[in-house]
Amino acid sequence: MRRALIVLSALLFSAVGAKAGVWETTCSGCHNGVVAPTKETLLSKFKTRREFMAAVREAVSKGKMPPGLKYGMAARELFGMAKRGGKQVSPTSSSQGKVTGDPYAKYKRFFEPLPALPPIPADNPLTPEKVQLGKMLYYDPRLSRSKIISCNTCHNLSLGGDDNVKTSLGDHWRTGGRNAPTTLNSGFLRVQFWDGRAPTLEAQAKGPIQAHVEMNSTPEIVVRRLKAIPEYVELFKKAFPGEKDPVTFENVAKAIAAFERTLNTPNSPFQRYLLGDSNALTKEQKEGMALFVKYGCIACHSGPVFSDGRFHKFKWNNDLGRYRVTKNPADKYKFRTPQLLNVAVTAPYFHDGSVNSLEEAVKIMAQKELGKKLTGEEAKKIADFLRSLTGEVPLEARLLPQLPGNNPE
Amino acid sequence: MRRALIVLSALLFSAVGAKAGVWETTCSGCHNGVVAPTKETLLSKFKTRREFMAAVREAVSKGKMPPGLKYGMAARELFGMAKRGGKQVSPTSSSQGKVTGDPYAKYKRFFEPLPALPPIPADNPLTPEKVQLGKMLYYDPRLSRSKIISCNTCHNLSLGGDDNVKTSLGDHWRTGGRNAPTTLNSGFLRVQFWDGRAPTLEAQAKGPIQAHVEMNSTPEIVVRRLKAIPEYVELFKKAFPGEKDPVTFENVAKAIAAFERTLNTPNSPFQRYLLGDSNALTKEQKEGMALFVKYGCIACHSGPVFSDGRFHKFKWNNDLGRYRVTKNPADKYKFRTPQLLNVAVTAPYFHDGSVNSLEEAVKIMAQKELGKKLTGEEAKKIADFLRSLTGEVPLEARLLPQLPGNNPE
Repeated sequence: MRRALIVLSALLFSAVGAKAGVWETTCSGCHNGVVAPTKETLLSKFKTRREFMAAVREAVSKGKMPPGLKYGMAARELFGMAKRGGKQVSPTSSSQGKVTGDPYAKYKRFFEPLPALPPIPADNPLTPEKVQLGKMLYYDPRLSRSKIISCNTCHNLSLGGDDNVKTSLGDHWRTGGRNAPTTLNSGFLRVQFWDGRAPTLEAQAKGPIQAHVEMNSTPEIVVRRLKAIPEYVELFKKAFPGEKDPVTFENVAKAIAAFERTLNTPNSPFQRYLLGDSNALTKEQKEGMALFVKYGCIACHSGPVFSDGRFHKFKWNNDLGRYRVTKNPADKYKFRTPQLLNVAVTAPYFHDGSVNSLEEAVKIMAQKELGKKLTGEEAKKIADFLRSLTGEVPLEARLLPQLPGNNPE
Repeated sequence: MRRALIVLSALLFSAVGAKAGVWETTCSGCHNGVVAPTKETLLSKFKTRREFMAAVREAVSKGKMPPGLKYGMAARELFGMAKRGGKQVSPTSSSQGKVTGDPYAKYKRFFEPLPALPPIPADNPLTPEKVQLGKMLYYDPRLSRSKIISCNTCHNLSLGGDDNVKTSLGDHWRTGGRNAPTTLNSGFLRVQFWDGRAPTLEAQAKGPIQAHVEMNSTPEIVVRRLKAIPEYVELFKKAFPGEKDPVTFENVAKAIAAFERTLNTPNSPFQRYLLGDSNALTKEQKEGMALFVKYGCIACHSGPVFSDGRFHKFKWNNDLGRYRVTKNPADKYKFRTPQLLNVAVTAPYFHDGSVNSLEEAVKIMAQKELGKKLTGEEAKKIADFLRSLTGEVPLEARLLPQLPGNNPE
């Protein structure tokens, strides 16, 4: 169905003939003479498309440019047409005038609708029993040493999957240095945590349960408490059939990860817009969408959750980011691109939660990452567009489980 | 419907002729020579039913005996029959032998099924808009100073409406001296808090929001934050129509109280048993129910939520209880009878949460309040009976609301 819709919208797109240049809508965001060389510089440096593409491939392989963008199309725009007809294709020569109805529809092709589910790892298949168990564990504060803090305390499904404070408060009112990211749609992220220190949701789930400043528990405490509750033992057996001793910390993480892979938020106005409802966005939001593409925000905030899953430099405070994981000096101040779905309900922003206003966050990002000084109006339009990314948290996930009785300890 | 069922069961009851003596099943629990004089002592002290009833009324008016029990029936058993026929009615003369089917059915009349709703105060009518707003406030941690603690943190609707720890952890990891009572069915309680310091749920709701060791907020903080969220302002207008400035601390408490009056738990096995499903309890639970009546637990744990709403002495630790509110020396160590619905999922027990096991709590109560030393088997049967009081938390209350976006402060 989804595929059919995409094909259909692609056909419609080519039928109306709308075509915005890839260079203008994607590359120019970074290639503005501040972050990366301008089009003119590149044209004077590279003589052929082949030369240009070789340089692109090298830059991508070294992580200097994001992978997966439409480089071939951009190269044809810069070199291909010139080679054949001697005439540079200008982005303004796109057939915008011919578009009937929604003049912003041409930007849709830079985005991807959110699939129903993220990739499911082969070693942790999704089953109803596992998701149900994972949901109970997600909401159960007895996983924490104090028996007061659950996953949902900091990743509150009433509040966009996070806690809306600068940095979360954990065991003994301790606080970590980074803002809690939302668990919503987190299954679509290529790596977990701001510094990407966990490759999977399974690995991620084990972190906060044990972190001194968060739940401050241990695998031993967790397993001992769960084994003391007969209902849980039974549920683990059902979720992990065939295992002799299924109540393990490993399986706790697997069940929570399975539940988290269901925390996807369809039906956002933007999702509805992408799938054909051209009235789902306001005019301001459509203008914001166009700016988001034109100014190059999309270079990093790409894909179904608006994150390339890569690490980019953002020197903001003393947090060394990815470097703390890899010890590679090139990774200093690098952070994984955060997703943008539900960003309107997950303030405050940045890895330290230091900015409360979405408009301000947009302005800072444009300035620091793209070398662009946005006007207040531009920032507001982009923020308005981002507000259209708020989707629906599944009812089933929001229905508080009835947890089994108290453990005796 | 409910009334019809009660009438029906009363008719059925009289039809089968089962009749357990009120004295044996209710009065003897306290009148055991330890807590209060035995039947023999009373018969030697009072010569007529009139004399006896005058003493009862005086004792009730002074708070020495719980009100609302079947004193008239007990008096007829002790004096009335003797007057007419010169023959003492013996409790063992009840026509137990004639009962067909469920021999424990005769105990049903000492209990009341849980109504759908508790009394609704005239100055805070229940409306869907108010309940919906109250639910959002109940789940919203931004009512607390830290923005981390919501009503649901300590009155967790996943965990029987409390937090299952000895004493709750509040702002800056502070802790109070008393165990959090469940919010479930709390609308049926005549007074709120262990010491009854709040007469209504409205008055109660204001306490924890402001308590230093709990949410540590102020009416000013709460109102300022809510007024900064346009969606909330709109919802207050709808919940309190006609009010000029509806976002007040008073109305916050009213909305939360309205929501709490919907947190009633029907369909417990015992409720189903009372309403006619004689297989809803196990044999052990029925035996526990009989012991609960015979041993006099029901003298205080009476009514639809198993609480008379009165204060009774329970000298357990240094907590002076009701005295801290009234400064009346007679109130030292007195606490409001806790309700027993959902008691199986609201450990630990007593006002200080010092006892984890339901069996142990039953034993201690029997010993200290009724002067009875229960065998392990008896305690287990009563605990099993109490486990049949776990009902269903309404789905609508358990469905996490989607709270409006962040406030800017």
